[in-house]
Amino acid sequence: MKLKVKRFNFSTGRPVCMVNETTARELSLYVGQRILIKKNGKKIISVVNIIEDTLKKNEIAVSKEISSVLNIHPQDKVEVEIAEQPHSIELIKEKLKGRRLKKKEIYEIIENIANNALTEVEVAFFVSAVYEEGMSVRETRYLTKAMVETGNKLRFKGLVVDKHSVGGIAGNRTTPIVVSICSAVGLIMPKTSSRAITSAAGTADVIEAIAKVDFNYDEIKKIVKKTNACMVWGGSLGLAPVDDKIIKIEKIVNIDSFAQVIASILSKKISVGSKYILIDIPCGKSAKFTKKEAQKLKTRFLELGKFFKLNLKILITDGNEPIGNGIGPMLEIKDVIKVLRRENPPLDLEKKSVFLAGKLLELSKKAQPGEGIKLATEILNSGLAFKKFLEIIKTQKGDIKKIAKMHPGYTHHIKASKKSTIKHIDNKLINNLARLCGCPEDKAAGIYLHRKKGQVVNKHEKILTLYAQSEEKLKHARAFYKKNKKKIVEY
Amino acid sequence: MKLKVKRFNFSTGRPVCMVNETTARELSLYVGQRILIKKNGKKIISVVNIIEDTLKKNEIAVSKEISSVLNIHPQDKVEVEIAEQPHSIELIKEKLKGRRLKKKEIYEIIENIANNALTEVEVAFFVSAVYEEGMSVRETRYLTKAMVETGNKLRFKGLVVDKHSVGGIAGNRTTPIVVSICSAVGLIMPKTSSRAITSAAGTADVIEAIAKVDFNYDEIKKIVKKTNACMVWGGSLGLAPVDDKIIKIEKIVNIDSFAQVIASILSKKISVGSKYILIDIPCGKSAKFTKKEAQKLKTRFLELGKFFKLNLKILITDGNEPIGNGIGPMLEIKDVIKVLRRENPPLDLEKKSVFLAGKLLELSKKAQPGEGIKLATEILNSGLAFKKFLEIIKTQKGDIKKIAKMHPGYTHHIKASKKSTIKHIDNKLINNLARLCGCPEDKAAGIYLHRKKGQVVNKHEKILTLYAQSEEKLKHARAFYKKNKKKIVEY
Repeated sequence: MKLKVKRFNFSTGRPVCMVNETTARELSLYVGQRILIKKNGKKIISVVNIIEDTLKKNEIAVSKEISSVLNIHPQDKVEVEIAEQPHSIELIKEKLKGRRLKKKEIYEIIENIANNALTEVEVAFFVSAVYEEGMSVRETRYLTKAMVETGNKLRFKGLVVDKHSVGGIAGNRTTPIVVSICSAVGLIMPKTSSRAITSAAGTADVIEAIAKVDFNYDEIKKIVKKTNACMVWGGSLGLAPVDDKIIKIEKIVNIDSFAQVIASILSKKISVGSKYILIDIPCGKSAKFTKKEAQKLKTRFLELGKFFKLNLKILITDGNEPIGNGIGPMLEIKDVIKVLRRENPPLDLEKKSVFLAGKLLELSKKAQPGEGIKLATEILNSGLAFKKFLEIIKTQKGDIKKIAKMHPGYTHHIKASKKSTIKHIDNKLINNLARLCGCPEDKAAGIYLHRKKGQVVNKHEKILTLYAQSEEKLKHARAFYKKNKKKIVEY
Repeated sequence: MKLKVKRFNFSTGRPVCMVNETTARELSLYVGQRILIKKNGKKIISVVNIIEDTLKKNEIAVSKEISSVLNIHPQDKVEVEIAEQPHSIELIKEKLKGRRLKKKEIYEIIENIANNALTEVEVAFFVSAVYEEGMSVRETRYLTKAMVETGNKLRFKGLVVDKHSVGGIAGNRTTPIVVSICSAVGLIMPKTSSRAITSAAGTADVIEAIAKVDFNYDEIKKIVKKTNACMVWGGSLGLAPVDDKIIKIEKIVNIDSFAQVIASILSKKISVGSKYILIDIPCGKSAKFTKKEAQKLKTRFLELGKFFKLNLKILITDGNEPIGNGIGPMLEIKDVIKVLRRENPPLDLEKKSVFLAGKLLELSKKAQPGEGIKLATEILNSGLAFKKFLEIIKTQKGDIKKIAKMHPGYTHHIKASKKSTIKHIDNKLINNLARLCGCPEDKAAGIYLHRKKGQVVNKHEKILTLYAQSEEKLKHARAFYKKNKKKIVEY
């Protein structure tokens, strides 16, 4: 059946189309049903909504998620048929029952996620099946491979290195510092990062406070050729895109299965051709993983790394507390610049960045074993890292002067009710609080931590400051702080 | 923030609203975000879509799923705010990790499902958590209670009885026969049934072939007062509505947890005030449960029944094969009438119906122990059951003469390729095949089984006939049969 495309100026986050009731009846369609829309040899599976006016018989309105894939325009005709239930749903059910999946079966599920043949609900069942039943090394290997093969690949000349922090730690913006140090000594570090989903900011959000992060492959190649590195948003490059879809669903309940964490990280790195990869697994009280889990994850990473012929270095670091003083895009880039500029830097951020950079220099043989931290510190102190940072930012059409022009508008100081020593600051709650302030959309929004664990605060001294771009958001954040204050900062 | 309602003539299957980009930016909304829409003291949680034209700044378009709940009209103003992430998502995560949930926690999840505070994806995580981790008797009890208490209740005078088949068996349309027999001897049997979700037909679909099934509470009361019984669709009555939402999600991957099966059945029965309840659990080769699972389910049912002070009788029956010859609304109601009219009835359907009716007569003390089947047979043979059936159908504005006017349009006979004895007919595949024929929407569509297990078929004799209302659907069904013929009918 051919339908005429009416308009497609709505975004739904997933492929959705609308037809009127007459069309629906003729095609035996019902709300929520899955149909296959075809045009020019391309196809996409969409969920059906029913609309009563606006559309005439045999017309269809499609969401942007469809029009961009099929490259269709108003008045085009598209072929529509009822989509058969994908066989991969049966496989997901099998996984829910605890069966190990074969290579072919994992590929089938991942391909179906890639081409939107599975809905979000079905992906959710897959995510929880993997979470509940786990995956063997073999299954994880197939999962990683399938995620790489359903995406694009970038290739760069030279010694391509990368680093990745498993996340969950507020602040912790080591990436721009590590990238600046490593690329200053000639390592190739094409860093593609994500935006925050549940945290206050991802590296892409932070860099975006002062530079562009959304580039295509050719542009990235030019940036890397010129500067040895880039710090861009990976979301539009189509690198292991299934990973992004799975993460979106995982984040809803905030669960991480080992298999998915490993496949997610390795698939992205393999897609950009990295050979030397440092993986930082913070563990501790309010981190994603306990020490024991981190150890298990490390073992699993190394098993997989061997298979994919990657030089992996897995570091288990202290993830008990936020790192750096600023939480939020602008506040974090400020911390980064303080470290690079050697001006009153947050020492925990500096220490961790130098440690990670040093290990990466050793792994890639730019430094002798045990000499990495020394070399990284030298590059930092010499100003070479800052110079490199400015070069990358400039090439990404940015300017650190932008920071001076960013004002949060509304601030609120939280002061100590007694003299005491800070015992603990909770990563998860600090992230939640920063999001209520408007992170990561509002670049200047966030939290400044005046005190960190172990530091003494006097009565009436500031513990933290909230920054927001609207009174409403500040109000929400303050209410959240009030409700959870004993757990957010223990002192 | 107040927004003006623009129009709401689209159905999405869940609460969805649209705003334009300017409004979204001002309110910090993004695609897929959850907002709270309030009007006249009522509220609903909706997912946000972004539309670029059609709407002006500060306008909102809402789906029917919203307008019906809030009772809003175009030009109304609604209050909109960002919805906080419901705490129940944390609880679902806890359940995924295997923790037992407390009464208060289960109520919170169920209430959140009831008022649409949880999205389908979140419900999917809950469903798989319950499937993977199971629920204790205590948890199942709270789940059942919470599902009853978030819905409406119907109350009838007299001895209210009910029967329920756990399902999965093609055909198996015993309900109209059991209802007719039991209500003929004065039992009150207000039967609310579902429509098919993944099977060829639910009892509501079957009755709908010849009568109305969609009534409100007052109408149902009148029907029951007049005839002792009804056979209506329960979907619009708001009885344990959370159950319907959960089932919709469960069916996507076709999983059933014990806890959910029990809570689903008991919550509906408690909502209509049934005291004597017969539950039929078919088990076997292509049924939902194995014999061992059925036994476990039985024990669990009885534990729960005691708590809710219900007189339960659990029967584990043979669910290896389809029951009756017709599969599909019209074909099944024809089988039912053959049994009631005593004209060439499908013997397996007759036997099972009389067995169930007999057991229910014993349970409700209308028959002495061991005398139920005899009494049920007498009522059937006397014509009283058929008379009662016609009375109920008439009161539900129906007429069995409608059958004569229903024609499927397209038929295809499947004939035996050799002389053999039928070894097995697969319930699940027969259901799939019937759905491809157009069941349950196309009332006259379906399958007629000319032979059942154990019967001999000669070469070139018909094994089954496919009925469809369009050539397209018949084509799909034939292709499916061809692909799976060895598994659909083994002979």
